[in-house]
Amino acid sequence: MKQLQQRAQVLIEALPYIQKWAGQTIVIKYGGSVMTDPALQAMVAQDLALLRYVGVCPVVVHGGGPQVSEMMRRLGKEPEFIEGCRVTDAETMSIAQMVLVGTINQELVSAINTAGARAIGLSGKDANLIVACKKESSVGDLGQVGEVVSVDRAAIDLLTSHGYVVVISSIGVGAGGESYNINADTVAGDIAVALEAVKLVVLSDVPGVLHDPADPETLISELTLEQAQTALTDGTVSGGMIPKLQSVIRVVESGVPFAHLISGGTPHALLMELFTDQGVGTMIRR
Amino acid sequence: MKQLQQRAQVLIEALPYIQKWAGQTIVIKYGGSVMTDPALQAMVAQDLALLRYVGVCPVVVHGGGPQVSEMMRRLGKEPEFIEGCRVTDAETMSIAQMVLVGTINQELVSAINTAGARAIGLSGKDANLIVACKKESSVGDLGQVGEVVSVDRAAIDLLTSHGYVVVISSIGVGAGGESYNINADTVAGDIAVALEAVKLVVLSDVPGVLHDPADPETLISELTLEQAQTALTDGTVSGGMIPKLQSVIRVVESGVPFAHLISGGTPHALLMELFTDQGVGTMIRR
Amino acid sequence: MKQLQQRAQVLIEALPYIQKWAGQTIVIKYGGSVMTDPALQAMVAQDLALLRYVGVCPVVVHGGGPQVSEMMRRLGKEPEFIEGCRVTDAETMSIAQMVLVGTINQELVSAINTAGARAIGLSGKDANLIVACKKESSVGDLGQVGEVVSVDRAAIDLLTSHGYVVVISSIGVGAGGESYNINADTVAGDIAVALEAVKLVVLSDVPGVLHDPADPETLISELTLEQAQTALTDGTVSGGMIPKLQSVIRVVESGVPFAHLISGGTPHALLMELFTDQGVGTMIRR
Amino acid sequence: MKQLQQRAQVLIEALPYIQKWAGQTIVIKYGGSVMTDPALQAMVAQDLALLRYVGVCPVVVHGGGPQVSEMMRRLGKEPEFIEGCRVTDAETMSIAQMVLVGTINQELVSAINTAGARAIGLSGKDANLIVACKKESSVGDLGQVGEVVSVDRAAIDLLTSHGYVVVISSIGVGAGGESYNINADTVAGDIAVALEAVKLVVLSDVPGVLHDPADPETLISELTLEQAQTALTDGTVSGGMIPKLQSVIRVVESGVPFAHLISGGTPHALLMELFTDQGVGTMIRR
Amino acid sequence: MKQLQQRAQVLIEALPYIQKWAGQTIVIKYGGSVMTDPALQAMVAQDLALLRYVGVCPVVVHGGGPQVSEMMRRLGKEPEFIEGCRVTDAETMSIAQMVLVGTINQELVSAINTAGARAIGLSGKDANLIVACKKESSVGDLGQVGEVVSVDRAAIDLLTSHGYVVVISSIGVGAGGESYNINADTVAGDIAVALEAVKLVVLSDVPGVLHDPADPETLISELTLEQAQTALTDGTVSGGMIPKLQSVIRVVESGVPFAHLISGGTPHALLMELFTDQGVGTMIRR
Amino acid sequence: MKQLQQRAQVLIEALPYIQKWAGQTIVIKYGGSVMTDPALQAMVAQDLALLRYVGVCPVVVHGGGPQVSEMMRRLGKEPEFIEGCRVTDAETMSIAQMVLVGTINQELVSAINTAGARAIGLSGKDANLIVACKKESSVGDLGQVGEVVSVDRAAIDLLTSHGYVVVISSIGVGAGGESYNINADTVAGDIAVALEAVKLVVLSDVPGVLHDPADPETLISELTLEQAQTALTDGTVSGGMIPKLQSVIRVVESGVPFAHLISGGTPHALLMELFTDQGVGTMIRR
Repeated sequence: MKQLQQRAQVLIEALPYIQKWAGQTIVIKYGGSVMTDPALQAMVAQDLALLRYVGVCPVVVHGGGPQVSEMMRRLGKEPEFIEGCRVTDAETMSIAQMVLVGTINQELVSAINTAGARAIGLSGKDANLIVACKKESSVGDLGQVGEVVSVDRAAIDLLTSHGYVVVISSIGVGAGGESYNINADTVAGDIAVALEAVKLVVLSDVPGVLHDPADPETLISELTLEQAQTALTDGTVSGGMIPKLQSVIRVVESGVPFAHLISGGTPHALLMELFTDQGVGTMIRR
Repeated sequence: MKQLQQRAQVLIEALPYIQKWAGQTIVIKYGGSVMTDPALQAMVAQDLALLRYVGVCPVVVHGGGPQVSEMMRRLGKEPEFIEGCRVTDAETMSIAQMVLVGTINQELVSAINTAGARAIGLSGKDANLIVACKKESSVGDLGQVGEVVSVDRAAIDLLTSHGYVVVISSIGVGAGGESYNINADTVAGDIAVALEAVKLVVLSDVPGVLHDPADPETLISELTLEQAQTALTDGTVSGGMIPKLQSVIRVVESGVPFAHLISGGTPHALLMELFTDQGVGTMIRR
Repeated sequence: MKQLQQRAQVLIEALPYIQKWAGQTIVIKYGGSVMTDPALQAMVAQDLALLRYVGVCPVVVHGGGPQVSEMMRRLGKEPEFIEGCRVTDAETMSIAQMVLVGTINQELVSAINTAGARAIGLSGKDANLIVACKKESSVGDLGQVGEVVSVDRAAIDLLTSHGYVVVISSIGVGAGGESYNINADTVAGDIAVALEAVKLVVLSDVPGVLHDPADPETLISELTLEQAQTALTDGTVSGGMIPKLQSVIRVVESGVPFAHLISGGTPHALLMELFTDQGVGTMIRR
Repeated sequence: MKQLQQRAQVLIEALPYIQKWAGQTIVIKYGGSVMTDPALQAMVAQDLALLRYVGVCPVVVHGGGPQVSEMMRRLGKEPEFIEGCRVTDAETMSIAQMVLVGTINQELVSAINTAGARAIGLSGKDANLIVACKKESSVGDLGQVGEVVSVDRAAIDLLTSHGYVVVISSIGVGAGGESYNINADTVAGDIAVALEAVKLVVLSDVPGVLHDPADPETLISELTLEQAQTALTDGTVSGGMIPKLQSVIRVVESGVPFAHLISGGTPHALLMELFTDQGVGTMIRR
Repeated sequence: MKQLQQRAQVLIEALPYIQKWAGQTIVIKYGGSVMTDPALQAMVAQDLALLRYVGVCPVVVHGGGPQVSEMMRRLGKEPEFIEGCRVTDAETMSIAQMVLVGTINQELVSAINTAGARAIGLSGKDANLIVACKKESSVGDLGQVGEVVSVDRAAIDLLTSHGYVVVISSIGVGAGGESYNINADTVAGDIAVALEAVKLVVLSDVPGVLHDPADPETLISELTLEQAQTALTDGTVSGGMIPKLQSVIRVVESGVPFAHLISGGTPHALLMELFTDQGVGTMIRR
Repeated sequence: MKQLQQRAQVLIEALPYIQKWAGQTIVIKYGGSVMTDPALQAMVAQDLALLRYVGVCPVVVHGGGPQVSEMMRRLGKEPEFIEGCRVTDAETMSIAQMVLVGTINQELVSAINTAGARAIGLSGKDANLIVACKKESSVGDLGQVGEVVSVDRAAIDLLTSHGYVVVISSIGVGAGGESYNINADTVAGDIAVALEAVKLVVLSDVPGVLHDPADPETLISELTLEQAQTALTDGTVSGGMIPKLQSVIRVVESGVPFAHLISGGTPHALLMELFTDQGVGTMIRR
């Protein structure tokens, strides 16, 4: 009986968060080890299903660099990067699309359906959802690497308003129908802005912003936009966290009230971040 | 962190129940000490708010015999009962309506609003919701004691489909506009049938059906309709539990799939009964 | 036959008024002897039902000071007033709510239903309809006397747009869920403004503004806002009419095109005021 | 004041009728002197506007034999009848359509608009509303005289549900697009059946069924279907009343609950028949 | 097979035009020989039906001067014109309305229905669609010749949004319910503006603007608004083309993006103009 | 001009077909060389876009055996078939899903978008659209080869009713979330039945049923269900045509009125079959 009461108590403590996010859109950038560890993926899928059932409209955006690279190698093609960007010739583009849309997206859709919600996978080419153009680069021709020109929210709104969890692959379509490979963090941010989401949550393999990158105990739970901008310049963040933080700062500046950087490696990190005050990562807010 | 994960785990374990009851109507007969103990009432209100937020349509029906008797005495009128039924002359009817609609209903509405949902109180006279007639009795004239003739679900459906928690006082209206005092258990059952509810939950001061009334450890968690009917005749139940059990048997026979008898004296009993397999009371099912 | 034709003629003469008010909201402050005289109440109820059937959305607001005082005395508590305001301690509040919501509101709801429309009673606590705060007073602590902070029209609109006549008790709810006793004229005016009503009609025991308070024949049928403001200062009105006129002036200033002060003691006064040019009271208009 | 109260009283006495017909469709066959006397037409138009404003959906069907004959003669063509049916060659059809649709229909539409409602005129050719076929006759070839094959209620429903009063000319369209001249009583009856109307009211120049055709005082106010059938055979009715009565009997047999035969020559006869128990004509009911 | 492929090819070449006009309103002024030649009328009706089926909302406006004059003469009344305007006394008005609404409108409605769409005919008097006033003229009293005061698009929108092709006679209604005879080109233009149409197409007996009026080969396919204004003053256009061009210039200036002057004497001219780049008349555009 | 008129004529001749199929669902099994020849694919995409714009709801189902086999070989895995069924171990399933969903589906979606409609690609795993089970085979274990258990049309209906062309990969999902490789002809037929489609069109590399398989001139344009059943047994059809014919016979027997077998190798074959009486393949009808 006591255990039952503790469970009821936990549910009741979630009520204020449920009220707060009910009817709101939350965009989740899905990346890192949750994409390759089936157990973690199943837990993220449960979190998404629960969000859906308590009235949130979750929209998921994913990339899948390592999986694309692996398939390229299996097909006898060596991945090539310039300053972190994958050089994307036609064959690479074709492999990337095949892996992202045909494998990773379908796996997550299936996991969410198994968790009891109804998910539908889309790429930016479906209904010309994500119109893109070639990304100009000072370091050379990156091929079909693109950047977002516009997001058409009609199809996403139609599906979320009818209860579907939408899962989107970070592929864009050019004016001539050609495909573009786009950074998934960027796509997630642009979709959050286009959907007027209340939150963008970036699931990756690193916890949020740390005072001491070597010590997870030094996690910073919350940063205002101003503090986040300062953290970029005063040396608080370094390395791969810099572009991650820049990316979410841009999204918050564009009107999304909250952005979160959390580690997908923690079971149910998504739920913990959204349904407790303390959270498990770093929240940037206006 | 570990505590956070346990909390997330509890939420995830609630998911199957949330899925099961989402979009369904559950009628709660609200009675006993939860009506007089503000702390218990606040917890019931939280449970109702949570139900609403996870997609359930909770409809509450209440009576309030002790409060009516108390007000009668304060106004210098001695309550009189024949075989458990309150003899209801015009003045008694007027006091009963005043206390049920003006005091008890509003208190619960207020508690639910405070818990974060939006509640609206109705009596069976509003929109002629509960049409009643005089209850004939072999033991004498009971005055304005009534029984339900029909329930008009239109107003309830309108409100629940727009997210309101509806709280109904067990007052009925006769063909000529006269008021009737009706047993709240009966009203709750008739409303559950009229709304095609998936469940009727009867909150009172006794736990469910016990093998040994003196020992709460002998609680029977579940009875089929047939087992419940047998329990009435083989001596398993006795005393005040007999009419309670008869009442819910009638509701299940009329098509409501599940009826529950639980003790409102247990904090969050409602949530525990609905969101765990084990539950805290007795479930009667077809 | 001739009589039939006269009847038809009366209906046809009502057509321009019916066209004018069809689809509009009219707020009626229900007070005075119509609340205690069952025959007058039945006639007001018929008027409201007719309004509803010819396409008007009538919303009724009522207080009930004398009835509250009477119940207080029956319960052994002497009513106390400071400058016309009822000093409202917790027990007084509780009695006021009980009488207004449980007795007066239900009586009017029942009368309207009997007249053939469908009425639903609400208090300002239902769905947190009327959010209030404590009224500060220079003459001392009035207890739970409140003033309106905001009106949430969603529930009212939902019900009126589905054909229900809404009857509202002048009780408000504070930020912490506490109850407030609010002047019913004020509540009626604030609701008329919030609902963007075309008219506020104040039914009381006095006819409208009279040149000579002793002579009902000196009734002023119509006042512009400016004329009404002048009447306050040039001695045309005096005594209890001053706050009544101030109250409706405020409502017209806030955007309600017409306000009427009429005597509910005249049978079908409401219909006469709304369906004839001459009317039976005083109309204040912009 | 007394006069005002009498007016209010008349309105209140109309309430039960208003409630009874609100939301119902009533088909009015418009014929006789109301079509040629502008003052009577204006009064019928007011009656229709009032019906519309109190929630009834009035649908009007008209013919116009005398006006067609007059225009034929002006155009040098002598009308010819066989057993009461107009022999309709192509030119006659063309003149009939021109007069019915272009003159009579538009006059009534205009009168209704002037009375304050919004009317739209249709012929059976609009949207292929009334599909007809050639009427076979044992007395010779009647040319383009037709009978109703089917009524497509979609356009009528669309317009009435958006508040328009629909006025229909008794012209039908054949499978090949050809026009047919159809008896307006028949069309009105078929439309009443197709629209599942609650009433068909036939306005003509004769009062209802009389015991003594020479004495209007012998009017029979109400006939059951059975009594009406008997009246046809026992000599109660004779002459032109026979086909009129046969026609409405057929309509009541087909499921329309009430049919009325009234004299349009009486001002506001429509309103008197619908809003008083006594009425001014004969009602046939199941 | 080769022929089939050519047919398929034609359909595919129409696709860009279908996409361009889908969901748009196009107003067609229907005049000239298409009104009197049944074969041409049938082809216009087919064009309109096709437009409807590929998602365009076609709204047709027609006049019918010659037919009115002919009927006047048959009824012994000589038509009289002042500077091209028909002097319209009450009898003329009555004849004009009869011919336009009862004959011409119904013929076109019937032809469109035969072509497989569903058409409904309206005049400006239906639902007070076209409110007009007397046209003042410096050349004398023209009687009931009117000009458009306002267009109420509600009824047109209701019908087009439910798939009906609307056909409108150029009759207007005055404030007092009186009829007005209005120039159909003007009505078509005002309706195009009121409906926010994408195009106005004027079907008449002349091809579009010609450099050499005697040589159809000198047709000007397209004029900007500026070029059209110049053409009026530099002598490019002359005679009856001047008011036609002025009329469409006014419409384009009022916000309709495209206006077309085409010859209805060419079979399927409407389709050729709308579904090919070259077209068959003159297009004026902003 | 003459050429323009011929074009208009072709459009007009398409009108009866457009009327016939407007608002209907047509399922297209997309297979054969149209999947690998970009020019043919572009033409099919145009045909689908045109269908969409003339009011048809086209739903496309595709497989892609050769492309799957090719990718398997590139990844070092030899395809293996038992009696025409691909033996599908986990890796094969994974490759099939990747190729079908990530490559073929997206290519067709992109082609349709380029043709001007809006397409969305789904697999049977999205929203658990196609629930499947393991196909039992007498010839050995085929691995994850499945057959359709049920089709959930909700997501398809949602998308088609909002104007999207839906493209579905023939992948199913098992009760446990596992993937199944299903014959695309079967899936197309089951979807046609579930959607209550008016037609199933099977695009492949063979023309329809031929009297003499070696002579395309001996094509049979139309077969009743009975004739088709006879053709299976009397030797008219042989070889690979037998299962194709059996498959569509089953669909017609299940209630789809028409099924077509046509050669996708003919440009715009789809349009020619649907918009001419003669057609280019074989139609089986009830």
